[in-house]
Amino acid sequence: MVSERLKKDMDFIIELDKMKSIMRQTTLIDGSKREDDAEHSWHIAVMAMVLHEYSNAPIDVCKVIKMLLVHDLIEIYAGDTFCYDVEGNKSKKERELEAAEKLYGMLDEDKGRELRSLWDEFEEMRTNEAVFAAAMDRLQPLFSNYYSGGGTWVKHNVTKEQVYNRIAPIEKVSDKLWEFVTNLIEDAVRKGYIAG
Amino acid sequence: MVSERLKKDMDFIIELDKMKSIMRQTTLIDGSKREDDAEHSWHIAVMAMVLHEYSNAPIDVCKVIKMLLVHDLIEIYAGDTFCYDVEGNKSKKERELEAAEKLYGMLDEDKGRELRSLWDEFEEMRTNEAVFAAAMDRLQPLFSNYYSGGGTWVKHNVTKEQVYNRIAPIEKVSDKLWEFVTNLIEDAVRKGYIAG
Repeated sequence: MVSERLKKDMDFIIELDKMKSIMRQTTLIDGSKREDDAEHSWHIAVMAMVLHEYSNAPIDVCKVIKMLLVHDLIEIYAGDTFCYDVEGNKSKKERELEAAEKLYGMLDEDKGRELRSLWDEFEEMRTNEAVFAAAMDRLQPLFSNYYSGGGTWVKHNVTKEQVYNRIAPIEKVSDKLWEFVTNLIEDAVRKGYIAG
Repeated sequence: MVSERLKKDMDFIIELDKMKSIMRQTTLIDGSKREDDAEHSWHIAVMAMVLHEYSNAPIDVCKVIKMLLVHDLIEIYAGDTFCYDVEGNKSKKERELEAAEKLYGMLDEDKGRELRSLWDEFEEMRTNEAVFAAAMDRLQPLFSNYYSGGGTWVKHNVTKEQVYNRIAPIEKVSDKLWEFVTNLIEDAVRKGYIAG
């Protein structure tokens, strides 16, 4: 007999398929389509595997990867809120907390708690792992925008100040990644992708 | 000065964006579009987080997750080969080895070797982690087919024998998952999704 626990796990896994239809603002680098949450989450998890050696502090990369894989699950119900959308961000926390209750509540209590704690840790951004995870989450759209010729920076008239505020976690976790990223942003300003 | 090593890492990460355009045969569960390699890789990595407790043998779930995140990278150059495509599978290994040389060769030698060893381990399917990873890779499309009303099973007249051959790794790693999966397949046969 298949256990109730396993049935719940499978229902949860099937629900996660919806992540492939939650569209983000950013496009692929080749501009062919907008990126979805599943693609984004995969990309930044691999980025953590490739870039963790540049962390200033020692980190548990496995924890970072797990956090990144689940950090956007709540968007299945709460939707993607564009980072520079002031109005949308006012209600974001409340919508996401409700979504977390609903989603992780599909699982047995111990398992829901374990997975949700990864999201909570990511959101609180207090551990080295959470800040490194946030750095990956902020770094990846820079590539999409820069290499697609401006992307959402141009579309939404984003300023240099807004970009620097958004990528602050990168400065916190890695001198080397920070150097790379500031070069890229200064070049994006020169190219007119970002308002100076 | 940004190091050559970091520049290579960033070029590699940018190249990985192409995974979002490598289309698989299976569609999303809601039938809205075909799934791509990035979405698939994300889904099965999260599945490993949710399902590793059902492994018969103790496994390093972190290793499994890392393997799953990179297991399809070679398809950036080798393309996706449909699992029931007899002709395509004849040349698959050669095409994929060439792709691995090219892709992992973008990185410094030590790093390329480290990441590639995850793919090699996955392909050789000798460790418990590799077989569990394969089980996740085979389980996920069952959901896509079953819950979308037959999917590629119907489209390609796939038989019960072919499906059971394909999902053999699940039987090896987990009695509980195997029970779940055989129930699902028998029901798919009853529903006419799989040729009996």
